[in-house]
Amino acid sequence: MLKIQALMKKKPLILVTNDDGISAPGLKALVEVAQKLGDVIVVAPDSPQSGQGHAITLHDPLRLNQVDVFGNIEAYESTGTPVDCVKLAKSIVLNGRKADLCVSGINHGSNSSINIIYSGTLSAAMEASLEGIDSIGFSLLDYSWDANFDHCKSFVQEIMEYVLAQGLDNCKLLNVNLPNPKNGEIKGFRICRQAEARWVERYVENTDPRGQKYYWLTGDFVNQDSGEDTDVWALENGYVSVVPSGHDLTKYEALESLKALEGVAID
Amino acid sequence: MLKIQALMKKKPLILVTNDDGISAPGLKALVEVAQKLGDVIVVAPDSPQSGQGHAITLHDPLRLNQVDVFGNIEAYESTGTPVDCVKLAKSIVLNGRKADLCVSGINHGSNSSINIIYSGTLSAAMEASLEGIDSIGFSLLDYSWDANFDHCKSFVQEIMEYVLAQGLDNCKLLNVNLPNPKNGEIKGFRICRQAEARWVERYVENTDPRGQKYYWLTGDFVNQDSGEDTDVWALENGYVSVVPSGHDLTKYEALESLKALEGVAID
Repeated sequence: MLKIQALMKKKPLILVTNDDGISAPGLKALVEVAQKLGDVIVVAPDSPQSGQGHAITLHDPLRLNQVDVFGNIEAYESTGTPVDCVKLAKSIVLNGRKADLCVSGINHGSNSSINIIYSGTLSAAMEASLEGIDSIGFSLLDYSWDANFDHCKSFVQEIMEYVLAQGLDNCKLLNVNLPNPKNGEIKGFRICRQAEARWVERYVENTDPRGQKYYWLTGDFVNQDSGEDTDVWALENGYVSVVPSGHDLTKYEALESLKALEGVAID
Repeated sequence: MLKIQALMKKKPLILVTNDDGISAPGLKALVEVAQKLGDVIVVAPDSPQSGQGHAITLHDPLRLNQVDVFGNIEAYESTGTPVDCVKLAKSIVLNGRKADLCVSGINHGSNSSINIIYSGTLSAAMEASLEGIDSIGFSLLDYSWDANFDHCKSFVQEIMEYVLAQGLDNCKLLNVNLPNPKNGEIKGFRICRQAEARWVERYVENTDPRGQKYYWLTGDFVNQDSGEDTDVWALENGYVSVVPSGHDLTKYEALESLKALEGVAID
């Protein structure tokens, strides 16, 4: 309640980023929702960065340029990865101010299940969460550039309002996936765990105009998880999936079984 | 026991990769250990890929060339990320054979704690673990190119032998960090959880020869975790840290508190 009152006094500062790049329609849709709720600053990659995961740029310098893309919204594009964009936002653009919320997306394509570890969209949101900022990664289950984001905007707004009002206390990152609009009306939110699924990859093999062989990644998403408490289930059944997510990869249940190693003597 | 007997009949197939690139001394050290234990195939990036996290190459074709770097060891370099290398190994190089073990590294520099999510070394091992292959990421707490890997080879061999003999049943990925040799004798293995630590970043700001501003990432690692059961503690106290790791980012303890969202009505 105190938090809500504080928010009523001061407009929240919302950092918006993505991995499809500064010109992506999904980013525009997210900015349109965010500006209803607070002061918005955009820092996004200058080119598509899908599949960049938690990559950061260590071996090269980064560029950061203010751009006029969203009318009166302060916006910057960077040569870096989505995670770089969040780091640049914190260190250079915000320069001491702290965002109340970071939203990333809306991604053109699903980031449910195992996709979270490949996704630049979610990695950007995770990076903000590591800085103690409540963060949400949004993805729509439509990979096309001209995907229809209108049908899901009310859900995007609702969950942003919820997080701004309540705060995320025991989890700083939500992975939110929105069903494909072609599959009918959205039934509501579903709080889920990450499904155990994977990609079964193939490479398209071909030769370039100089006769050199190349490989291009493609593949199929395979769900191995029949649970009805998963994000994949929620999406298949018309719900917006919400997975509270973290960054601790420790597999606690395996700690005990490895203890024998502690007694090993090395010659 | 049956597994050990099976291994005695047939040499295990060990896939070796890294993120520092095909010519890194840390990779050479790891290959030297691996070839004592089985048949070795190397697929590694053709250039340094530190900080690439779980990035994959979607927008460009990949190259894969056999190289003669390790004498009689079958080795390939790729233009892709460390995770791309594992995918190419599985789909193109192994072509139906399944590795018994994937080892990645030895990384020049620590991958304890939060570094696991930025690390190409660990992401490569995680990618193999997603394919059901027992996997180990190795990192030495020395960032220099001419780091001394000799002092830790016996520990690297020991844990590889352990995993080949026992298998990793309830966890397919170990994050193994080796203390800096300058800090004295290694005391043994310590089974740990991932410490709660983070990077506090800064950007070095400068102008290039054309007068354009650029930013270059630097920063300090800050441990916020006083637990004596963490990887950071183990390393500071002369142990090899072993963190059983996974890929499920769900924060289960936060599921219940978000349930209120399921009842929200959207206009």
